[in-house]
Amino acid sequence: MSEKLPSHIARGVRRRDEVLRFAIGVATQEGLEALTIGRVAEAAGFTKAGLLGHFTSKEELQLATLRAGRDSFLQAVLSPSAADPPGIVRTYRLLKRWVGHVAASEGGCFFASVAAEYDGRGGVVRDAVEQLVREWMAGLEHFLREAKAAGHLRPDADTADIVFALYAFELALNLRQQLLRDRKAPARGIAGMTATLYQHATAAGRRLLKNEVRTR
Amino acid sequence: MSEKLPSHIARGVRRRDEVLRFAIGVATQEGLEALTIGRVAEAAGFTKAGLLGHFTSKEELQLATLRAGRDSFLQAVLSPSAADPPGIVRTYRLLKRWVGHVAASEGGCFFASVAAEYDGRGGVVRDAVEQLVREWMAGLEHFLREAKAAGHLRPDADTADIVFALYAFELALNLRQQLLRDRKAPARGIAGMTATLYQHATAAGRRLLKNEVRTR
Repeated sequence: MSEKLPSHIARGVRRRDEVLRFAIGVATQEGLEALTIGRVAEAAGFTKAGLLGHFTSKEELQLATLRAGRDSFLQAVLSPSAADPPGIVRTYRLLKRWVGHVAASEGGCFFASVAAEYDGRGGVVRDAVEQLVREWMAGLEHFLREAKAAGHLRPDADTADIVFALYAFELALNLRQQLLRDRKAPARGIAGMTATLYQHATAAGRRLLKNEVRTR
Repeated sequence: MSEKLPSHIARGVRRRDEVLRFAIGVATQEGLEALTIGRVAEAAGFTKAGLLGHFTSKEELQLATLRAGRDSFLQAVLSPSAADPPGIVRTYRLLKRWVGHVAASEGGCFFASVAAEYDGRGGVVRDAVEQLVREWMAGLEHFLREAKAAGHLRPDADTADIVFALYAFELALNLRQQLLRDRKAPARGIAGMTATLYQHATAAGRRLLKNEVRTR
């Protein structure tokens, strides 16, 4: 995309992306509240005035950081799903990438961090965090409904309950990885998620899932 | 206890407890980092000098707040277990009180909040948070081992895996309650925990658990 922009604008876009990558790191480790214009400007090698050319307020910087975190998460975790046929295998592969992404991220899960930071507050940043979590839960549930429609999950499986359990294992693996420095946390997390899918799967779904787990 | 202390000391202890109750509330909502001497002094009606008579530094105030949070949690959730016979029923009742405590706490789970706040940092406060989470996990595992010894959980049940799943459901219910304002979150949480125990229970354990869930 940026190749087609005039070079000074392309440069601006690249600089903006650079700032946001840095900001995601700070926010995951120390919280979105740590993202002050002065702090981010200094660390990213901008003057305060220069950074204010990209983001006019702390709140705008926080919201842009959330959006950038969402976009890179969906790019890494969700986008590859387009190549998989709908059903339990697509769901399992999505969960594997989710866990892999959290395990590979410095500071762990960006969204778990900011959710804990904002869940006791009000304001537009809090609302944006809530919306991102709801969006991801809805995405997971969509995959589970596809799996049900494909005959891989039992017709009576409660997809909202399954989403709750999958999210639970993600939060727990993130806590173990970050706070307890447990290197087996990602393996425990994916094992819990896989067992959850298995419990609610049909015989056909279980065969596909077992085969997928074995060959990966 | 405090009745036997000289009255000026007893008053000091009460004032200290009062400050710590207030501090737990602030820390759950906004984080332990929000506990500055000036902030807490003002809100609790102390002068800064007066508060410094009780806590000599921000860090000491943070550590005392963690200990006070731990003590009131164990008092509410763990202490009543002494009256229950070891086994799956004692474990289930503990989980019910845990979920009830989180559901009733303004700002949700104090430990989930501070765990998320400190998991990307270093320092003595972080280490204290880690120790508290480990202590609680070890306590849960102790109850599960008792349930196994009583013949209520299968001999091959992996108690560390069960603790992981129980903790997962607690974190997920806390997120749903606080961030998504889902009033059914506690019910979902205890349902997930109960299903986890049930999966790993023996026939005798399942009978006891079913009976306990029905009569409560």
